[in-house]
Amino acid sequence: MPRSGAEARRRLQQAALELYRERGFDQTTTAEIAARAGVNERTFFRHFPDKREVLFSGEAELRAALEQGVAEAPEGLPVLDVLRHAFRAARHVPEGNRSFAEPRMKVIAATPALRERDLAKGASITESVAEALRKRGVPDRLCLLAAQTAWAAFAQAYTAWIADPSQSLDDHLIQAFADLRALITPTPTDDSTR
Amino acid sequence: MPRSGAEARRRLQQAALELYRERGFDQTTTAEIAARAGVNERTFFRHFPDKREVLFSGEAELRAALEQGVAEAPEGLPVLDVLRHAFRAARHVPEGNRSFAEPRMKVIAATPALRERDLAKGASITESVAEALRKRGVPDRLCLLAAQTAWAAFAQAYTAWIADPSQSLDDHLIQAFADLRALITPTPTDDSTR
Repeated sequence: MPRSGAEARRRLQQAALELYRERGFDQTTTAEIAARAGVNERTFFRHFPDKREVLFSGEAELRAALEQGVAEAPEGLPVLDVLRHAFRAARHVPEGNRSFAEPRMKVIAATPALRERDLAKGASITESVAEALRKRGVPDRLCLLAAQTAWAAFAQAYTAWIADPSQSLDDHLIQAFADLRALITPTPTDDSTR
Repeated sequence: MPRSGAEARRRLQQAALELYRERGFDQTTTAEIAARAGVNERTFFRHFPDKREVLFSGEAELRAALEQGVAEAPEGLPVLDVLRHAFRAARHVPEGNRSFAEPRMKVIAATPALRERDLAKGASITESVAEALRKRGVPDRLCLLAAQTAWAAFAQAYTAWIADPSQSLDDHLIQAFADLRALITPTPTDDSTR
């Protein structure tokens, strides 16, 4: 039996991922996950409310880190740079889950129920980031737009990092925010098209 | 009984919306929707595979209009302007559903199962838009990021249009794409710190 709660939690996540990959999400029960992890089913439910949530345990930590990152970004930055600061400051959360990240992404991509939950988690975190911007005095109209745009850059960086771990997540974040800036920077041809 | 298939479809959508608002999504059956629309349940299933999809019928049309808009945008435009062109060209799709738009948004916001489906639809359309950009030769790394950024602007414009129909959807789209540019602009108080 795992000694600590944190170790049990990690073993449950690992077991769930293995079983979802071997048998599929729908064909796996919480009892089987618990058995594979060497704990009883009650321990599963002490850590996770259901078998979807077992894959989304980093959510609260990421949300808190992003809110803090937005609050602590230097004064006077353009909104997108506030968000770049926040996502870079929060990168330790995905970095701490690197070993789960790749199989987790594959299982989510292959399971519509998990894909929808993943999108809902992203939308919820994005709303928290927008709220943190509002508290900094960013105009209301820009808050959600900015948060969603930055979330797209984060998703881009995260996916690239899973595919190419030879570069750090921070390098991928810097690249994705630079890509985003290039996309929204006006070019000389714009005037004629408006 | 409604005379045409299109009229039956519209009455089913209207009936579903009414019932979801009156009783809640979970408490409404397809038989009840059909009865309210004055058709039989078989007719419901001829038009919609389930009671979630009845609220997402514009999806295929919007996707097709956006793909066409990206393909037909003038050569030589910056990527974001290609997308601005495409979303403006596709605005007739949401405009055609204006009377359903507001109650529909409220029901979706109040129903987690519909909210997740809505996010999944948006993600799927965004992937199609990214693919259309790829076909124009936009670098791979930028396609999904650009499509998600434009989708955020579209969502912003759409929500603003529902809240404020005194301006056209096109005006709101122009504003939202302009707001994207404001994300990289320092705010007036910023000058001293940069």
